[in-house]
Amino acid sequence: MLIKNIDLVPIDGKNEVIKNTNIYIKDNIITHIGEIREDIQVERVIDGKNKIAMPGLINAHTHIGMSLLRNFADDLPLHDWLTKKIWPTEANLRGEDVYWGSLLSMVEMIQGGTTAFCDMYFFMDEVGKGLEESGMRGVLTRGLIEDNDAKAKLKETKELFNNWNSKANGRIKVMVAPHAPYTCSPDFLIESFNLAKELNTGIHIHLSETKKEIEDSFKLYGKSPIKHVYDLGILDLHTIAAHCVHVDDEDIEIIKEKNVFPVNNPGSNFKLASGFAPVAQMLNKGVSVALGTDGSSSNNNLNMFEEINLAAIINKAVNLNAISVPAISALEMATVNGAKALGWNEEIGSIEVGKKADIVLIDIDKPHLYPHHNIISSLAYSVQASDVDTVLVDGKIIMEKREVKTLDVEKIKFMAEKHAKDLITR
Amino acid sequence: MLIKNIDLVPIDGKNEVIKNTNIYIKDNIITHIGEIREDIQVERVIDGKNKIAMPGLINAHTHIGMSLLRNFADDLPLHDWLTKKIWPTEANLRGEDVYWGSLLSMVEMIQGGTTAFCDMYFFMDEVGKGLEESGMRGVLTRGLIEDNDAKAKLKETKELFNNWNSKANGRIKVMVAPHAPYTCSPDFLIESFNLAKELNTGIHIHLSETKKEIEDSFKLYGKSPIKHVYDLGILDLHTIAAHCVHVDDEDIEIIKEKNVFPVNNPGSNFKLASGFAPVAQMLNKGVSVALGTDGSSSNNNLNMFEEINLAAIINKAVNLNAISVPAISALEMATVNGAKALGWNEEIGSIEVGKKADIVLIDIDKPHLYPHHNIISSLAYSVQASDVDTVLVDGKIIMEKREVKTLDVEKIKFMAEKHAKDLITR
Repeated sequence: MLIKNIDLVPIDGKNEVIKNTNIYIKDNIITHIGEIREDIQVERVIDGKNKIAMPGLINAHTHIGMSLLRNFADDLPLHDWLTKKIWPTEANLRGEDVYWGSLLSMVEMIQGGTTAFCDMYFFMDEVGKGLEESGMRGVLTRGLIEDNDAKAKLKETKELFNNWNSKANGRIKVMVAPHAPYTCSPDFLIESFNLAKELNTGIHIHLSETKKEIEDSFKLYGKSPIKHVYDLGILDLHTIAAHCVHVDDEDIEIIKEKNVFPVNNPGSNFKLASGFAPVAQMLNKGVSVALGTDGSSSNNNLNMFEEINLAAIINKAVNLNAISVPAISALEMATVNGAKALGWNEEIGSIEVGKKADIVLIDIDKPHLYPHHNIISSLAYSVQASDVDTVLVDGKIIMEKREVKTLDVEKIKFMAEKHAKDLITR
Repeated sequence: MLIKNIDLVPIDGKNEVIKNTNIYIKDNIITHIGEIREDIQVERVIDGKNKIAMPGLINAHTHIGMSLLRNFADDLPLHDWLTKKIWPTEANLRGEDVYWGSLLSMVEMIQGGTTAFCDMYFFMDEVGKGLEESGMRGVLTRGLIEDNDAKAKLKETKELFNNWNSKANGRIKVMVAPHAPYTCSPDFLIESFNLAKELNTGIHIHLSETKKEIEDSFKLYGKSPIKHVYDLGILDLHTIAAHCVHVDDEDIEIIKEKNVFPVNNPGSNFKLASGFAPVAQMLNKGVSVALGTDGSSSNNNLNMFEEINLAAIINKAVNLNAISVPAISALEMATVNGAKALGWNEEIGSIEVGKKADIVLIDIDKPHLYPHHNIISSLAYSVQASDVDTVLVDGKIIMEKREVKTLDVEKIKFMAEKHAKDLITR
């Protein structure tokens, strides 16, 4: 395949735009970037006129099945939101609900330029089925809240790994997801760690999301949640740490020392009144901070361009510094840093020869994107999810001219609405 | 005209959605909302299936000519941004640049559901021409920075008033715009005030945007910018006060006492590292806070749904309170409060019988808007500018199925790009 005459933002460590270039793809690999090569046979040509090519966005922390509860409960205190609305409703969830909710989320993510995600939920076999169909790339993790079924959930995780890890041409990966230090005892955290070690995979966990969580951790363990899991040895494995909002200098030192991958979820952290993560401080210390949407019932969407924009503007106000988290850094958070978090940095996250072709084309022929001064600024400050025109994952076109090729969008909208209405009246 | 079978969010003081209703419009006035009326003759019917009707959004503070500098200079310290990039380039601006830049902004605003705006810039005759063509509603103000040409600028304002106030079927209004207390001496502020009084119109001014401005005001006048203009008597007229980021309790008391209309510009305030305005505190004290985008070179767009979303989520994080500025309040800021700020609250801002038909239809048949639980939450937390399907201003359809009817979008994109490129190399 050839994408010709395109302006390319490779996100390859440099703050640069390669004007009017050509991208060759063979099977799922980017084989050449630059001049037209007469010696390469091409089956399919995509015209890059008025388009920007950039790496597919990586949503490094989400709960995609929760889309069925989007705009179901808002403007409530956090405790009431969880205990009166979300948890009682989630208790009634069935596998089929999660299947259709997850597909709805995948359609939304594809339409917004997201090509890979890291999900934590339950009925994860259903998510695996949907993920395979969608053509996206993803990390599946079964959220482990310790209760009477804790052993069964660990067994489920192992089965999930055996069923789905490395499947779909390597587009699917499975990790172990102890939910959080406040929902898992030290013993259960260690059991989860041992399972991840046995499976030779990573950990996906919520860490230091709210002030209350920090206070409770100090009361119970005399230390922060991050110091707590560090002392337990949990961070010795590859760790995706969602949120990291309330982290102090010692926490950041630990994150750096253990090469933890924090995932910033600005939209959700603001909406749930959790607070402002010290993103600039972590980036400045060389920590690879990724970006995520969290679930769409606390956001309320899965729009990575919105999160990029939030990351790029909010940290300036928080730090009273107009150069804090510049455009390119916010874009790196959503691409290369996401790839590192998901353990896929050799494969995806940037557009370079040898990498897999997870590529998004942005249509810049829109009034709100004129004039065409600085494309990197435009991607962080002006581009909308709806400007995504074409999406490739693993060398395959999964959306073209905004038409999703892999999924039946009308059926998914209908089934998601049906299951959502059924769920809340069940 | 009849908009039939539509779900209506009237924003009429109640947090409500009227399901499956019908809106009748005669000339530019909403004449009936409710059951189908066989006795009313209808020329044109719009089908409301899968759509939401809401009042047109009101962008209460912007500089629309600045779109030519969108994504031209970003990630710079504020002082360098202004003195090295924006001001030297603006010094080369010509009337024709402002005409095309303003039209580009109007296309963007229409496509994002904005029906009225309050602009502060120069070459305002050009903006008036564009505004008349666009079919939008707007307040024109000639920004008055005191310099050697200050007298001429006051004269220009008077001419602008005579040329444009009440024109275009009342869609255009002119106010007087002393730029800010830090760019205008007390004498010049009073001269501006006297002109506004003579013309029987209002004032549009920047107040308390940055920390530096407050510090300088205390050094120079021994009081805050708001106390300063209050003591000068400026606030005795209808006043649109852009920003109001750094306001203390006394300032808020003044705002309340003088019925000042603060305009919150979250996107710009964050990007320029100005800080967080105490929106919830002002709203709780009964102040009518409106919403704006500021210019698109400090945002970088004119997307009111983005500002609504920011207002609804950020104040929760700032106040560590998940019920701070709920969805309906953010929507009110962008509609009824905007109408009050622009002095048009009798005419627009809500969908009620007797008001002018400035109405926006949102297409909710989009994956990111499913399921359809709470429409008001959806409008604040999930809807995107690109979901705006149809726009009516003054009873006329100015966009239908995303096609702008009043302006030549292709020509405007071309001319804006041309003038932008010419401007920065002039």
